[in-house]
Amino acid sequence: MRVSQAFLPVLKESPSDAQIVSHKLMLRAGLVRQTAAGIYAWLPLGYRVLRKIEQIVREEQDRAGAIEMLMPTVQSAELWRESGRYDAYGPEMLRIRDRHDREMLYGPTNEEMLTALFRDDVRSYRDLPRTLYHIQWKFRDEVRPRFGVMRGREFLMKDAYSFDLDEAGARQSYYTQLLAYLRTFQRLGIRAVPMKAASGPIGGDLSHEFIVLAPTGESEVFYDAAFEEFDWSQSGLSYGDADGLQRLFDEVSSTYSATDETHDEARWNDVAEDRRRTGRGIEVGHIFYFGDKYSTAMGLKVSGPDGSNVTPMMGSYGIGVSRLVGAIIEASHDEHGIIWPEEVAPWKVGLVTMRADDAPSSAAADDLYSKLTAGGVETLYDDRDERGGVKLGSMDLIGLPWQLVVGPRGIASGTVELKRRATGQKEELSLEAALSRLTS
Amino acid sequence: MRVSQAFLPVLKESPSDAQIVSHKLMLRAGLVRQTAAGIYAWLPLGYRVLRKIEQIVREEQDRAGAIEMLMPTVQSAELWRESGRYDAYGPEMLRIRDRHDREMLYGPTNEEMLTALFRDDVRSYRDLPRTLYHIQWKFRDEVRPRFGVMRGREFLMKDAYSFDLDEAGARQSYYTQLLAYLRTFQRLGIRAVPMKAASGPIGGDLSHEFIVLAPTGESEVFYDAAFEEFDWSQSGLSYGDADGLQRLFDEVSSTYSATDETHDEARWNDVAEDRRRTGRGIEVGHIFYFGDKYSTAMGLKVSGPDGSNVTPMMGSYGIGVSRLVGAIIEASHDEHGIIWPEEVAPWKVGLVTMRADDAPSSAAADDLYSKLTAGGVETLYDDRDERGGVKLGSMDLIGLPWQLVVGPRGIASGTVELKRRATGQKEELSLEAALSRLTS
Repeated sequence: MRVSQAFLPVLKESPSDAQIVSHKLMLRAGLVRQTAAGIYAWLPLGYRVLRKIEQIVREEQDRAGAIEMLMPTVQSAELWRESGRYDAYGPEMLRIRDRHDREMLYGPTNEEMLTALFRDDVRSYRDLPRTLYHIQWKFRDEVRPRFGVMRGREFLMKDAYSFDLDEAGARQSYYTQLLAYLRTFQRLGIRAVPMKAASGPIGGDLSHEFIVLAPTGESEVFYDAAFEEFDWSQSGLSYGDADGLQRLFDEVSSTYSATDETHDEARWNDVAEDRRRTGRGIEVGHIFYFGDKYSTAMGLKVSGPDGSNVTPMMGSYGIGVSRLVGAIIEASHDEHGIIWPEEVAPWKVGLVTMRADDAPSSAAADDLYSKLTAGGVETLYDDRDERGGVKLGSMDLIGLPWQLVVGPRGIASGTVELKRRATGQKEELSLEAALSRLTS
Repeated sequence: MRVSQAFLPVLKESPSDAQIVSHKLMLRAGLVRQTAAGIYAWLPLGYRVLRKIEQIVREEQDRAGAIEMLMPTVQSAELWRESGRYDAYGPEMLRIRDRHDREMLYGPTNEEMLTALFRDDVRSYRDLPRTLYHIQWKFRDEVRPRFGVMRGREFLMKDAYSFDLDEAGARQSYYTQLLAYLRTFQRLGIRAVPMKAASGPIGGDLSHEFIVLAPTGESEVFYDAAFEEFDWSQSGLSYGDADGLQRLFDEVSSTYSATDETHDEARWNDVAEDRRRTGRGIEVGHIFYFGDKYSTAMGLKVSGPDGSNVTPMMGSYGIGVSRLVGAIIEASHDEHGIIWPEEVAPWKVGLVTMRADDAPSSAAADDLYSKLTAGGVETLYDDRDERGGVKLGSMDLIGLPWQLVVGPRGIASGTVELKRRATGQKEELSLEAALSRLTS
C-alpha cells in the first residue's frame, strides 16, 4: 500500500486522555479512534492487526478440531432467564428494549445461546463430543471504560464451547483448548503463562487464565522460568492423544504460576531461587470447565448408547481478540513506538524515500515496491513528498518489523539501508541483497 | 470435514413458519437457526457460505481501491443529532440507553460516524480522494421481520463511503463502485441488474440498486437482454481509467432496466421486443451519491490547494452480505435443495459412502478424502453409518457442486459415481479419473 493513497492518520502529540502506553500508541499510530466512551473504530492500520490476530486464533482453533460458526450480538432476555443469569448479571449487561418492548441484550458471552442451539438440534450421544466457537463482537457496559481497547465496552472475543458425554471427555476437551491456547499465544509472538484461576460468575471448578507479561500489566504474577522455555508448537503433541494431553496438563499444573490473588508463598519457596520470575501481566484468555451447570439448568439432554438420557458436560474458552492488540503493544514497544511481532505486523516492510522529489530515489523505490509486492511481501510504501525524518519517525511509531530506506546518496552508489525495528540495527546493502533478504 | 465430526443438523420436515424457499432451505439444510425474532445464529454450514461471500466482496472492494476498516456496532445518539437523522429515523432504529442513561443506538449505517472520523483526522486536499469500507453487523428493528435472513433485524452489510474534492471526482468514485458491484455479483455466480433508484432517506440525486433475478423476488423488474450478456470481469476496464468508467456508466444508463416503481412504458417500447426481459428481483446492493449532505451538516472541511476550505462530496455504497445468502438460494435451487454456485459453495465436493459398514468402500472413500484434501479440494465427507439414500438426500439438500459416491458394487469394479448437482448428470469413473476431474 502506498501511504499517499492510504488512510493512516498519525498524531504528533500523545493524547492527554490516554493513561497507558498501548492506548497512547494506538491513538498516535492511528490504529483506533474512540467514537463513544469505551467504543472504538478500527482504522485501517489497527484493523489489519486485528484481522491477523483473529486469523491466527481461528487457525489454531480449527487445528484443535473446534468448529466455527457465528452467533448474533443481540440476544433475548428469555434465553438468559432460563439459566438464571439474566437477573444475576450486573449492570455490565447492556439491556435493550426493542420497538415491541421485548427485553433483549447485547451478548457479553454465549453459554445460554449455544446450549439452546445444541438442545434443539442434537439428539444422540453419537453427535458428541463437539466444540464450537465463534469470533464475534461482545458488549460489557463497564462503569468506567479506560485503557483503550484493554478495557473497552464493545470488544471482539473468540469464545468456544465444548459438549461431552462425561467429565473425562470434558477434561480432554479442556486440555485440547489449553494446548490450543498455548500454541495460539506463541504464534502471536507473545509469552502467555497459564495460571490456575477462580472461575467466577461462569461457575465450575477447573479454570485457567492466560497472562501476557508486560511491565504495565494490571496484576502481579509469579511463575517458574520453565514457562519461558516451553515450546508448545514443537512438542509434536497431537490433539487426539489423550495420554499426551493429560501429561501436558499435569506438567502445566505442577509448574508454579500464580497471580497475586492465588499466590502461595509456601509453594513459591519450593521453586529454585534462580528460576523464580515475577512481573506484571495482562489477562488475554480464560478457560472454564463447568460441568452440567448450563445443560441441567436449560434441559439439554441427549440419548446415550443404552437409550437413557445423558446430560452433557460443558466448558467454555475465551480469548480477548481486540484486547490482544493492546496487550501485544504493552509487551512490545519502546520510546519510539510499537514493535510488532512479525506474525501480527500490519505490513512486514516499511519502504521509505528520504527525498521523494529526487527522481532516481523515487524510481528505485517504485521498483523495489513492485518487486516486494510481486514477491508476496506485505509492504507499506511511504511515497509522500514529506521530510524524510518525519517519515522515518512515523515508521518507528507504526512499528513494522523492517524499514527499507532509499536516499539519494545511497542510490548514487547503488545501496539502500535496511533497519530491523526491534533492534534498531541498520545495514547498507545493494538493492538486490535487500530484496533477497526480505523475500527469502 | 467429516460429517461424523461436524455440526450439520439437517431437518427432515420443512419448517412451518418459513414462507419463502430460501428461508425453508436455510433452516432445513442447517445454515441458520432463529434465536429471536429476525435474529439468526449462523451454523457452521451457513457461516462458511457467509464468509465466502464476504471474502469476494472484500477482494473486489480492495481491487477497486477502497480501504478496509471496522466501525463499531454501537453508536452514540449525539453523532446522529449532528446530521439531524436521530430524530428523523423511525422506529427501525434500535435505540439503547447505557448504564449511565446515555442515548446510544445499534448502527443501521455509518455515514455520520465516518464523516466524523474523517473530520477529525483529515486536513488537506492531498488526503483526498478516499473510499473506506467496512463489513460489519447492522441492526434494523423491522416491525415484522420475515423471510429469514432476507428481512432480518441483525444483518451483515458491506458499506463503503467515498470522499472527493468535487462532484466530478465523486462521480468517478461512484462509477468505480458501480463497476466493483457488477464484478462482485458476477463472481458470486448471480446476475444482478443495476437499476436507477430513488435515493430515499440517505438523500442525493444519483443512485442505483442492484437486483438479483429470482422468481420469488419482492419486486417486478424489466430490463434489456443486454444485461444478460455483459461480462464485467472481462471488460479489461481499469479502475483508474476515467473515460472508460464514464463510458461504462453511460452504457449502463442507456440500457433499459427498471423496477415496477420506476418503469417507463414509453422507453420500454423502444427496446426491441425479443430483447425485453421481465421477472422478479431481490435488492442486494444500493449505491448513492449525496454530495455535501453530511459533510456540510457535520462541518467536514479540508484545505484546498489554494488554502481555502473545501467541503468534500460524498457517496455511500452498500451490499447486503447476509441477505445475499438468501438471494443466491432464491436464484439457485430445485425441488431437492440448494444448488450453490461454485465460488460460494461451503465445500466443493460431497463425498458419500453408500455403505459405511463395507470395509473396501470405507477404505476407498478414506483414501479419496485424504487425496482430495491434500489436493486443496474442499470436501465434506459423509462417513456416517447411515443409509446411503438418506446421505444422498442430505447432499442434494446441502447443494455442494459435486457429489462423489462410493458404493460396494462400484468399488468391486474400481469405479465411483460423480454427480454434478446443478444438472443431476451422473458419470461412472475410475477413482483416478474422478480425482483428476475434481483436482484439475
